[in-house]
Amino acid sequence: MFNQPKIAIIMGSKSDWATMKHAADVLDMFGVSYEKKVVSAHRTPDLMFEFAASARARGVSVIIAGAGGAAHLPGMVAAKTTLPVIGVPVKSRALNGLDSLLSIVQMPGGVPVATMSIGDSGAQNAGLYALQILGIADENLAARLEKFRDDQRQEAIESSDQLD
Amino acid sequence: MFNQPKIAIIMGSKSDWATMKHAADVLDMFGVSYEKKVVSAHRTPDLMFEFAASARARGVSVIIAGAGGAAHLPGMVAAKTTLPVIGVPVKSRALNGLDSLLSIVQMPGGVPVATMSIGDSGAQNAGLYALQILGIADENLAARLEKFRDDQRQEAIESSDQLD
Amino acid sequence: MFNQPKIAIIMGSKSDWATMKHAADVLDMFGVSYEKKVVSAHRTPDLMFEFAASARARGVSVIIAGAGGAAHLPGMVAAKTTLPVIGVPVKSRALNGLDSLLSIVQMPGGVPVATMSIGDSGAQNAGLYALQILGIADENLAARLEKFRDDQRQEAIESSDQLD
Amino acid sequence: MFNQPKIAIIMGSKSDWATMKHAADVLDMFGVSYEKKVVSAHRTPDLMFEFAASARARGVSVIIAGAGGAAHLPGMVAAKTTLPVIGVPVKSRALNGLDSLLSIVQMPGGVPVATMSIGDSGAQNAGLYALQILGIADENLAARLEKFRDDQRQEAIESSDQLD
Amino acid sequence: MFNQPKIAIIMGSKSDWATMKHAADVLDMFGVSYEKKVVSAHRTPDLMFEFAASARARGVSVIIAGAGGAAHLPGMVAAKTTLPVIGVPVKSRALNGLDSLLSIVQMPGGVPVATMSIGDSGAQNAGLYALQILGIADENLAARLEKFRDDQRQEAIESSDQLD
Amino acid sequence: MFNQPKIAIIMGSKSDWATMKHAADVLDMFGVSYEKKVVSAHRTPDLMFEFAASARARGVSVIIAGAGGAAHLPGMVAAKTTLPVIGVPVKSRALNGLDSLLSIVQMPGGVPVATMSIGDSGAQNAGLYALQILGIADENLAARLEKFRDDQRQEAIESSDQLD
Amino acid sequence: MFNQPKIAIIMGSKSDWATMKHAADVLDMFGVSYEKKVVSAHRTPDLMFEFAASARARGVSVIIAGAGGAAHLPGMVAAKTTLPVIGVPVKSRALNGLDSLLSIVQMPGGVPVATMSIGDSGAQNAGLYALQILGIADENLAARLEKFRDDQRQEAIESSDQLD
Amino acid sequence: MFNQPKIAIIMGSKSDWATMKHAADVLDMFGVSYEKKVVSAHRTPDLMFEFAASARARGVSVIIAGAGGAAHLPGMVAAKTTLPVIGVPVKSRALNGLDSLLSIVQMPGGVPVATMSIGDSGAQNAGLYALQILGIADENLAARLEKFRDDQRQEAIESSDQLD
Repeated sequence: MFNQPKIAIIMGSKSDWATMKHAADVLDMFGVSYEKKVVSAHRTPDLMFEFAASARARGVSVIIAGAGGAAHLPGMVAAKTTLPVIGVPVKSRALNGLDSLLSIVQMPGGVPVATMSIGDSGAQNAGLYALQILGIADENLAARLEKFRDDQRQEAIESSDQLD
Repeated sequence: MFNQPKIAIIMGSKSDWATMKHAADVLDMFGVSYEKKVVSAHRTPDLMFEFAASARARGVSVIIAGAGGAAHLPGMVAAKTTLPVIGVPVKSRALNGLDSLLSIVQMPGGVPVATMSIGDSGAQNAGLYALQILGIADENLAARLEKFRDDQRQEAIESSDQLD
Repeated sequence: MFNQPKIAIIMGSKSDWATMKHAADVLDMFGVSYEKKVVSAHRTPDLMFEFAASARARGVSVIIAGAGGAAHLPGMVAAKTTLPVIGVPVKSRALNGLDSLLSIVQMPGGVPVATMSIGDSGAQNAGLYALQILGIADENLAARLEKFRDDQRQEAIESSDQLD
Repeated sequence: MFNQPKIAIIMGSKSDWATMKHAADVLDMFGVSYEKKVVSAHRTPDLMFEFAASARARGVSVIIAGAGGAAHLPGMVAAKTTLPVIGVPVKSRALNGLDSLLSIVQMPGGVPVATMSIGDSGAQNAGLYALQILGIADENLAARLEKFRDDQRQEAIESSDQLD
Repeated sequence: MFNQPKIAIIMGSKSDWATMKHAADVLDMFGVSYEKKVVSAHRTPDLMFEFAASARARGVSVIIAGAGGAAHLPGMVAAKTTLPVIGVPVKSRALNGLDSLLSIVQMPGGVPVATMSIGDSGAQNAGLYALQILGIADENLAARLEKFRDDQRQEAIESSDQLD
Repeated sequence: MFNQPKIAIIMGSKSDWATMKHAADVLDMFGVSYEKKVVSAHRTPDLMFEFAASARARGVSVIIAGAGGAAHLPGMVAAKTTLPVIGVPVKSRALNGLDSLLSIVQMPGGVPVATMSIGDSGAQNAGLYALQILGIADENLAARLEKFRDDQRQEAIESSDQLD
Repeated sequence: MFNQPKIAIIMGSKSDWATMKHAADVLDMFGVSYEKKVVSAHRTPDLMFEFAASARARGVSVIIAGAGGAAHLPGMVAAKTTLPVIGVPVKSRALNGLDSLLSIVQMPGGVPVATMSIGDSGAQNAGLYALQILGIADENLAARLEKFRDDQRQEAIESSDQLD
Repeated sequence: MFNQPKIAIIMGSKSDWATMKHAADVLDMFGVSYEKKVVSAHRTPDLMFEFAASARARGVSVIIAGAGGAAHLPGMVAAKTTLPVIGVPVKSRALNGLDSLLSIVQMPGGVPVATMSIGDSGAQNAGLYALQILGIADENLAARLEKFRDDQRQEAIESSDQLD
């Protein structure tokens, strides 16, 4: 199972990639390998179940799932695995992602989905959260996450000088 | 396949029955047989798929599915059958069914769910809508639906005399 | 009554056609004939009633009705026929179709409207849902709907290779 | 046409009377006669059209219409008369009247409905607004409306002494 | 008081004119004279009170008031006159007019404002509603309003031929 | 002007007192005198203007204004004084105070209202905020506010032991 | 560091315990030790920072944080640690937890919070999600989580027989 | 402490400056000095606490804090000082600032934040409100604020002539 990525990024449609690549960018930056795939709850339901049910055995540790509108993908994947699933509400056309958010976050007791914010920053955070999960037991990764936070802080402080 | 009910009423949890029995009441009133079942998208995903995939072969014509919160049942059943699925948003505790409604109605292009109003009246209407579908090709049923409308009209008119 | 289309697509205003043609596109793709018409609840109320009341006798089986804002068309047509009515909430200018959605979906017990998602995908789904209704008793159509789903699945799977 | 009330209060269902009687109470207080009636857009559509179309000829000057949920009554009555229609959004079970409000107020250009606030105070205001309309040309009524405002002011001022 | 316009159109800011001119257009089309004025609840409160308090004596019959955001103008004008006030919620930048709508429509019992839909069509309808009020006692105006409805109906019917 | 309270608590109706007394409780606890009054934007508009316009001259430093629904009181008072006005959205019957909140907070540029949270805690915070304003220039009061925060902190810490 | 609980449950106020104990119940059921504590972002900000900053060193792996209204606790804790933080939106009085949800979930890019559903089921899911995170590297725990899912499924299936 | 600005304008990110400069513009217009700084609740939490805790001692009287999304900055600053904090909800990408507004305004009892309207006009009002606070004890400033209101009124009145 070596070389098998520990993180999977899936999304309901190809058009979600514009959002979900912000998760991939984070993983690329940290040099953590991942697989990415269109897995649609409504168009490829069997593939979705297969994907979710086999994920742990394939060595996946965390699943990041993005979807918009009646966003059933994260919750249905979560129903088929006990791996942690991170849901990213993709901004939808009419309701700006409020429908995506509620469809993902309002899961019933028993089957959790870890929901991020709507859109690009949510996808970025999904990548970071996956790393934070892996960083519990990986001191090196934890240290690099701290470093990322330091850089972020530094950048915020420096940006202050650029007002006006 | 005789005696096989043409309509199935499913719901995500036993507690949804308080709502969904209003669909059953309509079918009982019209003497149309149905099956009723707890089928949970998140707790019994395989059963759900099996149920949906086999429904047409078992003689089911219309599926009524009720769920609350991140209500994935109607949409996921719809993903596994080309029978018409009618979704009933069950009133949820925190958001009063707005989450249920958006999770059910905002389906992506390709997999439709016919969404009814939130709660009891939505369930009642799901029963009626199933009958209206069957009534396209069933003149007798169509006539009885017209009769139901007549009674309804009569009742509305008479209720006017009871103001004050 | 031969050549009489089984499906009617109506809309509250000519500008709704940009949305509703997605329903027509589906029917065209399946080679199912339909009539299309501007029928406004508020500007042509009598025409609307006449249209709805005579639909069954004219051979119509399913009515697809799209409207925006205080979208009364689907519900009022439903009040005048026991044929299945499918409502499409057209995206509105100020409230993005949330008003259209609630005006269509929140029907009282007794008069159901099958509500689709807001906008183009809702219109597309209305077309598909009409076909799914007709497909209950039409094995050939049912098979073609399954084929459509297969194509859809295939397309989703293939789109995965186009991520970056 | 003497003794014919100038104001009509209609409502979609008998249960709306609990709200709409606040309109009637105002008219009673001012000694202005009115008719009250259950007229349901969805259950008695023809009666509704007949009612609206004949209202002016019967001597009605203002129509107050209350309804909840997908509240189509005020808008559909407005489509069949050029008399001023006042709409009262009745508080609905799931969405607290937000659906009623949007269904009534978001009328398209061409067919106005004068919308009041949700619930009892909206009904009370519908009564007052009808009187204010009649008061344009009726100096005596206008004076009594001013007197009502004076009493209201006095009452507000006096209530201040009852704090604690 | 001859030549004194019977209808006043006021608005909270000059920028609201883009919306409110749709009310003026209707009055122009019917040849009914009106005054138009920026009257700001928050920037010219005294002027607003003066304007409202003196309106009836100046011969005004109906006041149309448009405002956006925390839209206090219609309600405060209504507090200072017993003439009918028609409120138009102007689309706001952040919340698309939902704030304007709720600020105008949710008036407490005792001081009614007749609220129209958000934006341009609401302004158009405000003009029409003012005319409908005046048309109660003006048969000629009533007839012209019916004619306007007829034209509207005809236009809707003809637009049907332009689909595709 | 001695003994003249520096803080005024006003509210749109007597029933708002159940909420607004939480502001008064804070001031009582700090021993800061205040006046309290029903001042209704819609029922006593002239009194409201008089009250606001004369507040500074009467020695008032901060005005706390609570109102519900189309809550115009805080904004209209703010339009008539340059003293700081603190607005408290009172929970409304149908929309739970969302209407009150938007009516108070969405003030146009030029006339600010400092808006607190909906309901009792908002009223409490209005009292505290008024004191914080006075505490800018009053070291003793500032010290007592710090003490209040300390007590609050202590209470929070101790409450931890009472879990289960 | 033995006996040090790996999971921390914190909440903004003692009253949140009624919700958050559903997280604790899950951990109790699985026999996983945890600490529980009132840590208020607004009343005990320094304690909060200290708690978050020292959590990893103290052996904590996952932090569950519940809060209502302007629910800043989960996000601020997340700003001070790179451990995974799970946020639970507690149902709020006026807005039913919609404010809690948006305050927790809409985190900016860089600092993720894993948001659960509003209320009791969200707290239960927070407990399960923490276990799922620990279960990535703990086969025994993973197996017990699968067993929990099995029981859940069984229970759902059996509940079906109890409909009526 | 001479030359030390009495007002501080802080914001969660450099991009908020486009909004927050409207607060600065007001202070510039009144010739009141201020400091401006990026202080991020999530990226620079320690700096934020330090900033807030030391503000009074550094001579700051009022803190204006703008943030978007899960906007924790104003509330967390308020938790660390008893100076008056004014919160400005910055318009967010997906939810148009409704999330920002609720995250800022729905503070729990004990720690108030004075919330302004969403976006540019909210920032402008934050500047004015800060001045109104300072103007309680500064007659000259109070007079200039009155003058600003006069100019505003004059401008509103004159703008009326520019309609059409």
